[in-house]
Amino acid sequence: PNQYLAGLPTTIFTIMSQLAVKHGAINLGQGFPDTEGPQDIIQVAAEALQDGRNQYAPLTGLPELREAVASSNRRFYGLEVDPATEVVVTSGATEALAACLMAVVEPGDEVVVIEPLYDTYLPALRLLGAVPRCVRLQPPHWSLPEAELRAAFGPKTKAIMLNSPMNPSGKVFVREELELIADLVREHDAYAICDEVYEHLTFHVKHMPLMTLPGMRERCMRIGSAGKSFSLTGWKVGYVTAPAALASVVAKAHQVLVFATAPNLQRAVAYGLNKDESYYQALSAQMETQRDLLRDGLHRLGFETLPADGSYFIVADISRHADGRNDVDFACWLVEHAGVATIPVSAFYDPEGDAPPQNLIRFAFCKKPEILSEALKRLQKAL
Amino acid sequence: PNQYLAGLPTTIFTIMSQLAVKHGAINLGQGFPDTEGPQDIIQVAAEALQDGRNQYAPLTGLPELREAVASSNRRFYGLEVDPATEVVVTSGATEALAACLMAVVEPGDEVVVIEPLYDTYLPALRLLGAVPRCVRLQPPHWSLPEAELRAAFGPKTKAIMLNSPMNPSGKVFVREELELIADLVREHDAYAICDEVYEHLTFHVKHMPLMTLPGMRERCMRIGSAGKSFSLTGWKVGYVTAPAALASVVAKAHQVLVFATAPNLQRAVAYGLNKDESYYQALSAQMETQRDLLRDGLHRLGFETLPADGSYFIVADISRHADGRNDVDFACWLVEHAGVATIPVSAFYDPEGDAPPQNLIRFAFCKKPEILSEALKRLQKAL
Ligand SMILES: CSCCC(=O)C(=O)O
Ligand SMILES: CSCCC(=O)C(=O)O
Repeated sequence: PNQYLAGLPTTIFTIMSQLAVKHGAINLGQGFPDTEGPQDIIQVAAEALQDGRNQYAPLTGLPELREAVASSNRRFYGLEVDPATEVVVTSGATEALAACLMAVVEPGDEVVVIEPLYDTYLPALRLLGAVPRCVRLQPPHWSLPEAELRAAFGPKTKAIMLNSPMNPSGKVFVREELELIADLVREHDAYAICDEVYEHLTFHVKHMPLMTLPGMRERCMRIGSAGKSFSLTGWKVGYVTAPAALASVVAKAHQVLVFATAPNLQRAVAYGLNKDESYYQALSAQMETQRDLLRDGLHRLGFETLPADGSYFIVADISRHADGRNDVDFACWLVEHAGVATIPVSAFYDPEGDAPPQNLIRFAFCKKPEILSEALKRLQKAL
Repeated sequence: PNQYLAGLPTTIFTIMSQLAVKHGAINLGQGFPDTEGPQDIIQVAAEALQDGRNQYAPLTGLPELREAVASSNRRFYGLEVDPATEVVVTSGATEALAACLMAVVEPGDEVVVIEPLYDTYLPALRLLGAVPRCVRLQPPHWSLPEAELRAAFGPKTKAIMLNSPMNPSGKVFVREELELIADLVREHDAYAICDEVYEHLTFHVKHMPLMTLPGMRERCMRIGSAGKSFSLTGWKVGYVTAPAALASVVAKAHQVLVFATAPNLQRAVAYGLNKDESYYQALSAQMETQRDLLRDGLHRLGFETLPADGSYFIVADISRHADGRNDVDFACWLVEHAGVATIPVSAFYDPEGDAPPQNLIRFAFCKKPEILSEALKRLQKAL
């Protein structure tokens, strides 16, 4: 078998979810809501199965979904997008990431990534023969170190992968940071793969797509996710917005990787994307309430937390409770003895790089308030 | 952008389907049924949306679908398969092919493929840095040339990709051919990626998975497709059966490429796979009737056809009607002047290889009998 793939560890999400089941733990590890998405969207998906459109969808997606993606770009960010040539529907954001990477990198190219990072970024780019250049956000404020970022860009840089709102940190990149990134991308004639699956999950800060900055319209591939925007993570419907010249290459990658996505789910997502602003506001308000509940509870238990203005996640510093144990040991101890599953943040760093911080664990707050309260009670009892 | 991907032509299926729409032609090009799959399976998919299981499915698939795949291996082929470790559910057979290739090849490895071949095989393996060694089936009987096949295997051979029943030829490989392939795979300590999406669509011959031959259980990755087995090509649910040591690597590739597949569709496919033999017999009987109708009609029009014992497809020799035009020109003429879309078979040969045959076009017969009859009438009028 392929050496690199065979050597990859099983994803930490699967490991912690399995431990959660084994120990009857509350699962604040893997990021998925414990409520269902909107009933009307599900209803549309069910009805769409029954009117005779169950054969292959077009390669780049159903016209109604591409229209809805274009319209959502316009309404939320003032981006004018041609649904015929600038949108590619994918089987979830994971496929979108792989397809965007394939579209731009060649073996030997360098790709700048920001740690802590989502766990498919490095395998996806290494399998394509690309070389990661990692830059680390700095706790306790998740600040982006300008000098390190500059140093990571060089003559071989082909792209940066930017995840904002960011998993696992919960960081939402602000304008000055985005401007710095945009400058570097322009200077190095590079592309940006913008993983914005949590675009609608920000708390009193506004998400700003890198694509909206000067000169970035032609260089960005912007990735969205129905799973995250509609709390239906199982559906695996994603979408890429990109200039036509790039979108056509992303489509070729999609052709080789998957080819098409289930028409009934696409139609339901098109319906969902056309919901008005109030839907998205309610979703982020609810998520914010849950973040506050969890964060305040963690503070009362003596955990410091790092800023988390978006996504499903908040990271806590375990130093005060860990008694010298590292994040992995502490997370394993918690799942067994407190009955609460989390994710050790060291899992989000390049295993081939320098030692990662070992005092941080990630909590998912995309769970019902009563579940979060119960988790806090369990933590209190165990600590 | 990536040079190789950017240079790939748009898939011939999309081109011919678009031409079909433009000219109001009957689409016997792209292979998808013009009827819906079984109503009860669709009903299960619709109901499964509504009982609260719309978050991420497990990486390797829902247990009920993995069980159903294992059970179908047992019932049809006597293969004992562990559903926990030897099945990986994918987002369609296209993803399965990519994941299986990723699981075994490293840059520089050689992969034996048999022409004419499905149009993602070569891009998928070239994007991984592998090198194809093509062997051509010989018209007019689609015979497999033993000497060429032997010569294609060598010290760098990592795998063979075998599609049986085969698209576009309609060939179903027979025992002697499979034994030859198995011998070569064993001799060269290689793997076989077995694309068997048309496994249940054979006409008075029995499909035999390469995996059932001596020594092949440990070397084969066998790919099936709900789209083809249940006439629901849009759903994009595929499955790989492989020995545990390989399946775990295929799962890693799936983790990086897509991660998971919609739970409601998986549940409906599990239900479908458990249908008894009569369902599959009725499906292949219907397809055979349609093949006969089309084949006999083509013969009456003076086309010779090549043997097609399985799949959705039959290939016809256009020499008598083409007036010296090649298959591409003739297919374009047919879609415009006869109102019938087909696929030129030269599209199924390596564009970097020797000149392909140019006297063959592929017809899809997975269409209603009245549509096939109308297509034949149109052909008669035009020729
Ligand atoms: C694809 S499983 C992981 C879900 C997720 O995004 C996370 O927990 O970080
Ligand atoms: C994925 S579109 C092509 C469908 C098909 O298998 C064919 O027409 O050969």
